[in-house]
Order: sequence, then C-alpha cells, then structure tokens
Amino acid sequence: MTKLNGIAASNGVAIGKAFVVQNPNIEIPEHKVEDHAQELERFNQAIERATLDLEKIQAHVEKEMGEEHAKIFGAHILVLKDPELLNTVKGKIESDSTNAEKSMQDTADQFVTIFESMDNEYMKERAADIRDVSKRVLSYLLDLPLASTSDITEEVILVAHDLLPSDTAQLNPAFVKGIVTDIGGRTSHSAIMSRSMGIPAVVGAGDATEQIEAGTPLILDGAEGEVLLNPSEEQTSFYEKKVEEQREREEELQQLVDDVSTTKDGHEVELAANIGSPKDIDVALANGAEGIGLFRTEFLYMDRDRLPTEDEQFQAYSEVLEKMAGRPVVIRTLDIGGDKDLPYLDLPEELNPFLGFRAIRLCLERTDLFRTQLRALLRASAYGNLKIMFPMVATLEEFREAKALLEEERQNLLGEGHEVSGSIEVGIMVEIPSTAMIADQFAKEVDFFSIGTNDLIQYTMAADRMNENVSYLYQPYHPAVLRLIERVILAAKAEGKWTGMCGEMAGDTVAIPVLLGLGLNEFSMSASSILEARAQLKELSYKETKTASPKILAQSTNEAVKEYVQENFLK
Amino acid sequence: MTKLNGIAASNGVAIGKAFVVQNPNIEIPEHKVEDHAQELERFNQAIERATLDLEKIQAHVEKEMGEEHAKIFGAHILVLKDPELLNTVKGKIESDSTNAEKSMQDTADQFVTIFESMDNEYMKERAADIRDVSKRVLSYLLDLPLASTSDITEEVILVAHDLLPSDTAQLNPAFVKGIVTDIGGRTSHSAIMSRSMGIPAVVGAGDATEQIEAGTPLILDGAEGEVLLNPSEEQTSFYEKKVEEQREREEELQQLVDDVSTTKDGHEVELAANIGSPKDIDVALANGAEGIGLFRTEFLYMDRDRLPTEDEQFQAYSEVLEKMAGRPVVIRTLDIGGDKDLPYLDLPEELNPFLGFRAIRLCLERTDLFRTQLRALLRASAYGNLKIMFPMVATLEEFREAKALLEEERQNLLGEGHEVSGSIEVGIMVEIPSTAMIADQFAKEVDFFSIGTNDLIQYTMAADRMNENVSYLYQPYHPAVLRLIERVILAAKAEGKWTGMCGEMAGDTVAIPVLLGLGLNEFSMSASSILEARAQLKELSYKETKTASPKILAQSTNEAVKEYVQENFLK
Repeated sequence: MTKLNGIAASNGVAIGKAFVVQNPNIEIPEHKVEDHAQELERFNQAIERATLDLEKIQAHVEKEMGEEHAKIFGAHILVLKDPELLNTVKGKIESDSTNAEKSMQDTADQFVTIFESMDNEYMKERAADIRDVSKRVLSYLLDLPLASTSDITEEVILVAHDLLPSDTAQLNPAFVKGIVTDIGGRTSHSAIMSRSMGIPAVVGAGDATEQIEAGTPLILDGAEGEVLLNPSEEQTSFYEKKVEEQREREEELQQLVDDVSTTKDGHEVELAANIGSPKDIDVALANGAEGIGLFRTEFLYMDRDRLPTEDEQFQAYSEVLEKMAGRPVVIRTLDIGGDKDLPYLDLPEELNPFLGFRAIRLCLERTDLFRTQLRALLRASAYGNLKIMFPMVATLEEFREAKALLEEERQNLLGEGHEVSGSIEVGIMVEIPSTAMIADQFAKEVDFFSIGTNDLIQYTMAADRMNENVSYLYQPYHPAVLRLIERVILAAKAEGKWTGMCGEMAGDTVAIPVLLGLGLNEFSMSASSILEARAQLKELSYKETKTASPKILAQSTNEAVKEYVQENFLK
Repeated sequence: MTKLNGIAASNGVAIGKAFVVQNPNIEIPEHKVEDHAQELERFNQAIERATLDLEKIQAHVEKEMGEEHAKIFGAHILVLKDPELLNTVKGKIESDSTNAEKSMQDTADQFVTIFESMDNEYMKERAADIRDVSKRVLSYLLDLPLASTSDITEEVILVAHDLLPSDTAQLNPAFVKGIVTDIGGRTSHSAIMSRSMGIPAVVGAGDATEQIEAGTPLILDGAEGEVLLNPSEEQTSFYEKKVEEQREREEELQQLVDDVSTTKDGHEVELAANIGSPKDIDVALANGAEGIGLFRTEFLYMDRDRLPTEDEQFQAYSEVLEKMAGRPVVIRTLDIGGDKDLPYLDLPEELNPFLGFRAIRLCLERTDLFRTQLRALLRASAYGNLKIMFPMVATLEEFREAKALLEEERQNLLGEGHEVSGSIEVGIMVEIPSTAMIADQFAKEVDFFSIGTNDLIQYTMAADRMNENVSYLYQPYHPAVLRLIERVILAAKAEGKWTGMCGEMAGDTVAIPVLLGLGLNEFSMSASSILEARAQLKELSYKETKTASPKILAQSTNEAVKEYVQENFLK
C-alpha cells in the first residue's frame, strides 16, 4: 500500500479504480519511410479520425452545457483544417522521408514555439490548442487510445496532471467519483470545479500520474488530502463505512434544503450561492440557496471573439432573476483584465496583473462596454430582486463615478420607455485593503458590502495566491484579515446596511463561527457547501461566537486563531 | 514658444540648452558593396573605436563610482569581442555583399530576438547589452557622434527617452542642470536618481526627444512638470529670478545643516537619509542627515555574477557605521526577488512579482545567504550604532524565524571570538497591510518600525505603482493609508518603541504635517530633501498638527486630505 499526500481540495471519500488521463509525454518514434504515399495516407486518416472525435465532443458539450462551452472545440477542429500546418507535416514526410509521427510532432512544436513567443494572450491560447490537438492526432498515429474525460463510462477516480476547462466541460459527475491532480492549490481551477460539482478531490499530489497506473484500486480522502494505492481489505472496509456515513450525512443534509439558516439561539443569516452562469441556478436551488450572493458575469465575455450585446446580456440576467423568483440576486459587473484576458479587447500586458488595470478600473475607462452592461442589468431588474455590485473599488471616487453612469443609463432607459425596478440596491465588493480601512466612509454611500476574501487576503498579505512559493501566506484566519472584516461589518451596521461575503472563506468550517460572531449577514459560497453550513449554524450559538470575537481578534497568528476556533467551536 | 508637460519628478528650475541623448531610431542605409576587404576594414575600425570608448567609460566610472558600477561596461566590451557576433556580421559582408551598417544591424536584431525570447532575466539583459553596444558601433560606421552622458562637458539640460542606470552612472551633476525624459513616473529610476542628485527633472514628457532639437534653449520647471522651448526674454528673466531665489533658498537652507530638527513648539524628530551604498554617506552628511534611516544592501548583490562574501559585506557595513560616527544607521537585509532579479540565484519567474517570493520570504528559504549577511552585520555592529531591519514581513512567524537566525549567528560569532555589539535594535519594515493591522502584536516583539510607504501604498490600493494605467491609484494621502500609518505609530508608542518612515512620503511637503501630527519619530528621505524638511518643521506647530489628526483621518479621499493640509498647514 502506497499513500500519496496532496492538498485537500474538495471534501468526501471516494473508492474506485484509477482512470489516468493521458500521460503528457508520449514517446515519438523517429524513422525514415520509403513509401511516401502510404505514410501520407496514414496521416490523413489520423486527421480525419481526430476531426470526427472533436465533432462528437463538440456536439456532446453543446447539448449538455451550451453553445459557449462548445466553442473551444470548434477552434480545435479549425486547427486540423489549417493548410499551413497540414502542408508543413506533409512536406516533411515527402521531402525528408520522415515518418508521420515525428513530422507531426516537430511541426506542432515549431508552431507552438512561434505562437508562445508572441506577446499576446490570444496567440498563446492558440499554442495550447495546437498542443491538445496534435496529441489527439498522434494518439491515432501511434494507435494509443487517448484517455479523454468524455470517454469515462464507469465509476472511476480520475488521475490527471491538471484539469483544463475543456476536460471538466466533458466530465460526467455520475461516473467520476473522485479527482487527483499532480499540480494546483485550493483555489486552482481543478479545486474550485470539483467543489462546485461536489466531487471529492486531492490536488497538488506531486507525481500522481506517474505513480498511479490505470486500473489501480484507490481510496481518496478529500478532507485529509490523501490517496491510498492498492488499499488493504481493512482499509477498504474502513473507508466503505465512511462512504456510507457520508451518504447518510448527505441524506440528513438533504432534509435542510427548505429550512431557514438559523443558529441554535435563533439568529438568522442568509446562505447564498456563488454562480458563474444561468445554468448553475438549478444546482444552487437544489442545495438550498436562499439567494445568489455572487453572479459572475465574465462567462458572457469569454471564449468568443467580440463583446456580448445588450440583448444577450439582458437574456442571461433576466433568466437568472426569473428563476430565483424574487430571492435576492447580486450580479457583479465585469471583473476582467489582469490575469483574465479578453483577446478582442487588446488589453495591455502587465508586470503585475493582480495589481493592474482590471474590473472597475477598466470599466470606468471603457465606459462603452460598461454602459452596455449597466443597461442590460437595469432592463433585467424588472424580472426579480436585483442587486448590482462593482468589483475592485479602491476609492470613493470610483464608486461615485460608477454609480453616476448607472443613474445616467437609468434615466436613458426610462426615457426610452423601458421598465426599470425602483428598488435596485447598489453595492461594492470589498477586496482591497483601502476599501476595508475606510468602510465607514463607503457605508454612507453604498447599499451593501460583499467581502471578496480571495483577493482581500492576497492584497492584505501581499502574496499571490496562485504562486506556490508564497501560498503559505494565503492565511484566511490571519488576525489582520479578520480585523479588516470586522471593520467592514461594523461600518455597515452603523449605517443600517448589510454585509455579505462571497469568497471561498464564507463556506469554510473554521471561518463560519468567526464570521458569525463578527456579525456577517450573508454567506455566499459554492452551492455544494450550503447544506453543511446550514447544519453547522444550527449547532452554533450566536451569543457565544459574539462573545469570543474580541479574543479571536486578539490572537497573533493564523494558526493561533485556527486552534482557538477548533477548541471552542468545532468539537 | 512651445511648452511640454510631464510629471514633476524633482523640484527646481533649470535654464540651459538641450543636450539630446541619442535618437533611438538611427536610420540604417542598405546597399551592396563591391570591395569586401575595405568594408571589413571599416567594420573592424568601428569595433576598435567602440571598444576604446567603452574602456574609457569603464575607467572613468570605476574611478568615480567604484568597481561595482563599472562592471556593466566590462560586459559591453565582451560583446564587442564575441566571435559569433563578429563572424556573423563579417559573413554577411563577405557572402551577401551587404554593407557593414546593415550587416551589423541585422545581426544585432537577430541576437537580440534570440536572447529576448528566452525565459530568463540574465539572457534578456544580454539582449539589452547587445542593443546598446551595436548602437555605438553603428554610430562610428555612420559617422554620427553618439550622444553619451559622459561626453557632457558644458552646462546643459539633458533630454532623453529614458535614463538607464549606465547613463546616470556616467552623468556629471556639475554640467547637467536639468533632466527631461519621454517616459517614466515619479518613482521611476530616472526620477529617483534625479531627486537623489538634486537635479530638477520632468519625466514622462511624451515625445520630448522628438520635439526638442539639440541646442534648443530650454527652461525646465521641475516643481510644475513643465518644459518651455525657445522661451521669450520675459520668460527667461522671470525664471532667472526664480533660479536666483532658488540659489538664495539653498544658501538659507545650508544654515540648517547642523541644527536639530524641531517644530516651533519644541517637538523634536529625527531627519535621516535613505542611501544605496557607502559612497552616499558624504552627501547625506552634507545635507544634515542625523542618521541613516534606510541603508539598502542590494548594491552588494547587483551587477555581479556571484553572492558577496561575508567579508565584502562586513567592509561595506562597517564603513558606513564608522563614517556615521555613532549616529543611528538602519541597515535593511536583502530585499531582492520579484522584480529585482539576481541572475546567479536562479529565482522563479512569477506572474505577479510584487506579490511574490522576495525579501524576507526568500531569505528565510535561502538561509545560507541570509546567515552570511547577518554575520557580516553582527560583526560590523562593533563599529557604530547599528539597527537591523527585515523587509516584507507579513506575519509574526516570519519575524520570529528571522530573529532566531540572527541570535544563532550572534552566538556563533561570540563563540568564534568576534566582537558583537550588545545593543543592536532589531526592527521591521511595515510595508504590507497585514503588518500594519496587527502592529500591536508586532510592537511587543520588535524594537522599532519603519514604514515603507512605496510598497504599503501599492498593496493597500492594490495598484502597481509602476503601471501607468493604474498609477492614479498611488495615493499617499488616501485616508486608508493614513489610518494604517496611525495604527503603527500608536502601537509602537503603547510599547515604548519608535516609528520611522523610509518611503518617498517621508520627505513630501504635504505629508510632513500629517505624519508629524500622527507622532512619527523618524523621517528618512532622499538626502536632497532633508534641509527643506527641517525648514518646514521649524514653521509647524506639533500641537496644531496633532489636533488636526482626527479631522484629517476622517476625510474621505486623497484629494480631500491634500486640500485640508494645503489650507491649514501650507500657507
């Protein structure tokens, strides 16, 4: 029995056989061919089969997840039709008598190098496309079946180097019981996706794809960040019991779907869901969300070649508002720029994108696209309980400017005869230390705050949460972070406003008693965490957590806070 | 008369003729040559003359500024001896009959492209070297005298696209009366250098190098960020009067060199200097520095190919301590990593270097190099009044770990029979919001704080100060920044410790009354600002600034604070 340790990314136990996603290093044979015509034919067939594959995936994804998600496969199919690429490979076969595999590999490498050397995110993405596609072609040439997440039709534990958006897009949660990846942290794409799909996961497990062979029996413990290879019978029965307990726990939790969220001493808060597109609403409601605390609008702008129109946006926003039937829906305006690039916007390359020209900073400069979004939001407001939220606000001037644009567009729409709700709340994300420090000033002008802890923590600690060398500084319980959160909540209370939180922290078991005691009103999290949070709240006394607050804020380190909470509220 | 507007980078008025540093786009003629031997001879001569040039510059810089600064020119000379480069150029002349200029240019472009495409800072610097050197060779081939800052032997106003470290290294402040650059901001290298040399400067003036021809009469107003081209007689006499007033003001200020730094109601503070190498001490003392508030140690590590030894460091530290003759000297341990790379350390490339693996984070990992520095510091402590300061501390654990290493090395040195001072104060830079937020906890364990506002502001506002798109968010008077500063000072006072400041803000006329009122003990700044600050303090009442503090901290924006201070303390 071997044990691999990684980062606990998504809770739960999974038992099953390993399904190892394609080894990233296929070995490419190199030899001279005599029969050029035959080799060309072999190459053409591989291209045809790869194209057929991709068309199937595209159709499947379009049906299951919608047109937007299917677009990337359209781009992949175009690569396989690119005459420059095809002719270069064929040239190598014909003039150099090089075999098709080697010709394909060299050509792909050559194209990838060229695209990657360009200082342009769009071109770099093309490099990734070519790499993916060429792997598929090579797999047919070499007659090595390419492991694809869409091929999974039995219950397995997925083992991959990392999961790309296109991998997760194809993944069927009915069959994938657990996920292990070599790289990534708690806030990596793989980790966030697995939490939102409720699949137990361990990420950053080092060389899992090398150590685990396909078919190896595995036990994955997502809460502990552990993966057992070839477990003993005792271990298996021990964990089978755990899985059973887990299933029972899930049934218990299911009872709470329609409950309100109250502590044992009767203090009520709101448990809401963070979503990324209208199709996430069903899962949020099935998990007992009382509202949407964060609707990210970036999906409307990504994987496409132009800005979304006002009508396209209106459709998406009003769909979410209608489905939520009067429950609160906080929609965040565009949070793009920095690390999230849109090729068609031609944004500047930046040395420190996390400290750069993004979100509201970009929107106040590019008022054309901002006004379009505001108009779509205002029009949609007639269909439900809309709250509008601006991201990355650092100064009062920024908020005033954004709000003035909103008011202008409201007047314009009313003038044009559109219906606009008269009771839209307008608030801000608190994710920059400056904003938390002058929350008292903001509280006079905003309708609500929503604390974005993912960014707030990284700015407060001056540590990029995606950078493994400093990820130890991503400390949600650091007393500095908690004190900033307290300032925000107190400032809002003093002005009769409410405070929510939409970072990962809002669904964290250790953080919940602390945030409750500090007086947080709304906790917005991955849908999969809501029922657990509701159950935890039922066991907590608001009065006790409130009394503990000063002691918690007086701790000197992240670890000390964690220990205090574990001793006092998690036994 | 034309007027150019730029960013006010260094105060003062300068009147003089323009000296325009090399146009970045030399036009390269292209033609075929018949006499290959003659063309090769022309090329060889250009190489020889360029080499001679560089050897002269190297000797001059070594004499004036020391061996370290001269090293870059050694690297440039090596480029001119590189057989691969020379042979490629000669090959083009001989095989393609291309003229020497075009052959040189194409070869340089080719080498630059290769080096720049490498994902390695060291190689990218080699690209910059080749670009510089090839320009020099081309200038001889084209018989266009290359404007070099070392050639300046009369009083001029320097006009350049940007100033590289090698430009400023050669610059003679006796002749250069003012500086105008096309690019850069208030905290760019050019701006900081001109302030530290006391030369009036306007940076970021757009296309100054295109609009201003060599020899054009100029008036530069560094305080206003203005440059007048071909000024009228009235303008000239108006500004000549200003220059005269400036000279008189300087004489007045000179009277304050040996004064203590006291407000008109008798409150005393310390005015100290920020320095970057031992040679800066003389200027600091000549400007009345009462101590060194920040001695950056990076110069020991830069422009070389290996780590400095313990003895090399000991020499530099003890030299500064001896020269300061018992006055306090705060030496900051290595603040490298992130944007400040050391090729020989092989640091990881990072997406957001300002939020990355740098300073104390790096030192606690690379304890080998950290221990060497700590030993050198401890040994030097016997020669003066040393205070040791750790940069980029975000958690108490980091401080405790660094201090433990220091104590270990102290014991080691004592065991080896070395003398070590028994009264070294050990403190931290406060430049990360988390540290300011829990300053009360830190104050129990450190001996002093020094607030690094350059970084503190950029993290508090989540805005890269070097990024022009968000530089409007670099707001030193933002009430969030001021409130963080207040927390630090109050926390120190409560534990009987002192607080200094070593960012640009400490020498800023608007900031000084605010910081005084908040109770800052030590103001450390560019040497050239010290006497102005001392004169300003004499006019201020500590009691009045203290009374104003709550009103200032209750302002809602950077602008509102600025207006308040200007109305109440700057009339």
